[in-house]
Amino acid sequence: MKNIPLLNQLIAQFERLPGIGAKSAQKMAYFVLSGDKSRCEEFAKVLLAAKEGIHYCEKCHGLTDREVCDICADKTRDAATICVVEQPGDIEAVEKMKEYHGQYHVLHGLISPLSGVGPDELTVRSLLERVANEDIKEIIMATNPSVEGQTTALYIAKLLKPFGVRVTALALGIPVGGSLEYTDAATLSSSIENRKEL
Amino acid sequence: MKNIPLLNQLIAQFERLPGIGAKSAQKMAYFVLSGDKSRCEEFAKVLLAAKEGIHYCEKCHGLTDREVCDICADKTRDAATICVVEQPGDIEAVEKMKEYHGQYHVLHGLISPLSGVGPDELTVRSLLERVANEDIKEIIMATNPSVEGQTTALYIAKLLKPFGVRVTALALGIPVGGSLEYTDAATLSSSIENRKEL
Repeated sequence: MKNIPLLNQLIAQFERLPGIGAKSAQKMAYFVLSGDKSRCEEFAKVLLAAKEGIHYCEKCHGLTDREVCDICADKTRDAATICVVEQPGDIEAVEKMKEYHGQYHVLHGLISPLSGVGPDELTVRSLLERVANEDIKEIIMATNPSVEGQTTALYIAKLLKPFGVRVTALALGIPVGGSLEYTDAATLSSSIENRKEL
Repeated sequence: MKNIPLLNQLIAQFERLPGIGAKSAQKMAYFVLSGDKSRCEEFAKVLLAAKEGIHYCEKCHGLTDREVCDICADKTRDAATICVVEQPGDIEAVEKMKEYHGQYHVLHGLISPLSGVGPDELTVRSLLERVANEDIKEIIMATNPSVEGQTTALYIAKLLKPFGVRVTALALGIPVGGSLEYTDAATLSSSIENRKEL
């Protein structure tokens, strides 16, 4: 099989997808090749149409097929709060909770000097412009609680200080349904530090 | 995000791939949408080109971009032995071992009355024709050791009886590097039954 260049190219394409190794990529390639031609054509068509039709919202930089995304365009939502997330997919996670009704801002990455990603590679400037021009009261930093996520949150919080806006971060602690026995020391320490009065 | 039809279509396409759930499909869609347009176009192009250019070998029904695949066309290989496998990917697994130098025959499925797959849906007739017309000495049934795999192997072995050809199946036993403690009873029973003289 090794010397079918088209097959190897197809496997390589699947291998580029996140979380897909050599074995899964091979499985996917065989799946596509053994299926109907029309299904494969539809796959290619949807791939191109989605890439063509979906772009970033000019305001929050989330994904949309219009100029401004549904969330930014929704007048019933709280316009004074912005939840800052790393990727468009994170909006989905926060929305699922159904308890947050403010705006979003997608950074499209985290500050990571080792990977050569500085604030200019992210949408930080656009966030500052929003805070300067709109009537924003609170910025909730909802980046992942990793080293890069926390660095990015602190960096942006520092930039926002002069605007006099309230900047908060998600609480760190033991997850609901979790067990103390399997909670790492850093999480446990944070949950003790931020303990609540009952 | 939910109301971007193109995004949902793209996620649905990824979800159809084997082993991909809703979460992974979403991740893949975001990955494609956040990447370069040229990369996405290349993905679609390779997908169509592979589907267009790769088909089944007329002889063994494995994948090839020519009329007859490299293995069937290779005159240095043993033409008297056919290894019967379920899918084209299984050929790769046997070839990796580098100890088998015969021919192959891909069934493209297993007999499964519950799923409505009978011998006519597979390439069984073509296998019988090969045995009738070529000088075949041995057929190695290398279907998976599942109920369907073993049923299929026994069924084909029965059909091959009149041709007077030797039909063998892969040995069942404990895998190299495995542990007795975690071996299931059926495998252990088979490995005891087929024990070898030292």
